[in-house]
Amino acid sequence: MYKIVLIRHGESAWNKENRFTGWQDVPLSEKGLAEAKAAGELLKKEGYVFDKAYTSVLRRAIKTLWCVLEETDLMWIPVEKSWRLNERHYGALQGLNKAETAAEYGDEQVKIWRRSYATRPPLLTKDDERWPGHESRYASLSPAELPLGECLEDTVARVVPYWREVIAPEVRAGRRLIIAAHGNSLRALVKYLDDVSEKDILELNIPTGVPLVYELDEELKPIRHYYLGDAEAIAAAQAAVAKQGSAKK
Amino acid sequence: MYKIVLIRHGESAWNKENRFTGWQDVPLSEKGLAEAKAAGELLKKEGYVFDKAYTSVLRRAIKTLWCVLEETDLMWIPVEKSWRLNERHYGALQGLNKAETAAEYGDEQVKIWRRSYATRPPLLTKDDERWPGHESRYASLSPAELPLGECLEDTVARVVPYWREVIAPEVRAGRRLIIAAHGNSLRALVKYLDDVSEKDILELNIPTGVPLVYELDEELKPIRHYYLGDAEAIAAAQAAVAKQGSAKK
Repeated sequence: MYKIVLIRHGESAWNKENRFTGWQDVPLSEKGLAEAKAAGELLKKEGYVFDKAYTSVLRRAIKTLWCVLEETDLMWIPVEKSWRLNERHYGALQGLNKAETAAEYGDEQVKIWRRSYATRPPLLTKDDERWPGHESRYASLSPAELPLGECLEDTVARVVPYWREVIAPEVRAGRRLIIAAHGNSLRALVKYLDDVSEKDILELNIPTGVPLVYELDEELKPIRHYYLGDAEAIAAAQAAVAKQGSAKK
Repeated sequence: MYKIVLIRHGESAWNKENRFTGWQDVPLSEKGLAEAKAAGELLKKEGYVFDKAYTSVLRRAIKTLWCVLEETDLMWIPVEKSWRLNERHYGALQGLNKAETAAEYGDEQVKIWRRSYATRPPLLTKDDERWPGHESRYASLSPAELPLGECLEDTVARVVPYWREVIAPEVRAGRRLIIAAHGNSLRALVKYLDDVSEKDILELNIPTGVPLVYELDEELKPIRHYYLGDAEAIAAAQAAVAKQGSAKK
């Protein structure tokens, strides 16, 4: 039996401002930093040890991982960072306020953009300063890999190969892994692992900064999964995520 | 022409307490954390950008690097951690106060242990809890690689192959690198790069938390090197390091 830990980054400056973030590289808020440290303390208290860690190339996930590694006395383990674990790219919505966008386009349209499986958000153009092709951190990506805006299906299409080719072999080799990533890249992974339907994945919310443990069988099929920590607080955090897209808060 | 940046970690809790540290995994002091952040701010101000970073498996060097990467907006670059960049292993002296040790054994003996090229400190035994063979972080090392205590010659013998086989090819490939390490692992590297004599290396002091830039020619021979920042403050920091081994402070 294998065990991996997934963790969504703590609250970011733009979660707090209720803005579409995507690949915009915003830092954790003070609350997010506290969430990340608390997650690390909890993992330490529960006796979790890791041999290797994976994260995105976005600072809110990296910083969350660093806090966890610092609290668990594991700063020395190898860390692999990949754009494939980045948040879903929100295209031309990046930077816009979710409630204002909802007021303009309606709650339903925003919910579709946020949560439908196969509908892309309004796309960026390549001359937009938000296009990742302008950043050296994405210099190794092929033109086809550089997104103009992603639906969850697109995110799944880049996360799953990374799981299969990079992470899964390490799990099979018996390494104890932690993956610090984002709401949608983790949802993409969970959809694949648990074979969640395109409809059900729409309603699946992963709270920020709470360790999510997956126990996997020999074929890496999930046996069970559970969040670490206080059940009531986790339910409240999930409800808060679900509510973010709504115009009336 | 190639350029690399070396940085010794900021002041650690045991630099502050004036204790022999070696492979003991002590954190930065508050002052050390401030030094690391200031080094990052300085590198950013001076326009330094890095493609990859190297550090030891000890938290004071890793944390120094993390501070630099955070201040320079480069948290996303790959980081490789290796025991080969660790501080010199101080054997059975690890944990002892330098001034007390000097009072007991004499300034000269302590200076020899601290700074002679080929005299090892009193060695650990394998049943000592300080022996690195007890730690999972060193599980990949062969019995011959696990030190009981090192002289600078021993440190050079493990640092130089890492430079030659791992770091130098990346420099030749044009990657801009930063190496965050320790007083003696950096001294080992500098001895090799500048071909410093065994006698002169004894008097070479690298201050904590100050970026040290090396410009290298096509064959990776140093053209020149210089510290970034205020010259007077750097000279004072170097003098403070030189004084640490002395009984009368």
